[in-house]
Amino acid sequence: SPEWSVESGHHLTCTYTFKNFKQALAFTNAIGEVAEHENHHPEITLTWGLVTARIWTHKIDGLTESDFILAAKISALEKPTS
Amino acid sequence: SPEWSVESGHHLTCTYTFKNFKQALAFTNAIGEVAEHENHHPEITLTWGLVTARIWTHKIDGLTESDFILAAKISALEKPTS
Repeated sequence: SPEWSVESGHHLTCTYTFKNFKQALAFTNAIGEVAEHENHHPEITLTWGLVTARIWTHKIDGLTESDFILAAKISALEKPTS
Repeated sequence: SPEWSVESGHHLTCTYTFKNFKQALAFTNAIGEVAEHENHHPEITLTWGLVTARIWTHKIDGLTESDFILAAKISALEKPTS
């Protein structure tokens, strides 16, 4: 599984690769389900074969514990294979 | 419906607003369906209440007719209301 990194001391980011658009969209939906459950929402950039998630806490415009929890839960997702 | 604009003479972009994350994700899926049908895929940035689509043709790193067709089909989508 790809690693999260802290960018500009401001947000967590991680990029996942997939073999097509469909898988990337399915993974976006899986992230969306986690986000709704956590009531904490990343920014997701989706394109053919690629999903990049960025997580931060808007209220403080920086990182809080909630961000690391959301990142860990996204990391625990299975990547789509079909 | 929001308008598409040409950015840097390179890609089309349009931003849609929604009242929550769920609607933004639903619209992302609707765009995904159009993209798969057209076999032409935008870059979609999704966050709480917001979807930004960017469209260009990777092969020429610029705009072709396919980009305008995809933009028109996305414009024709209904925004989710629930």
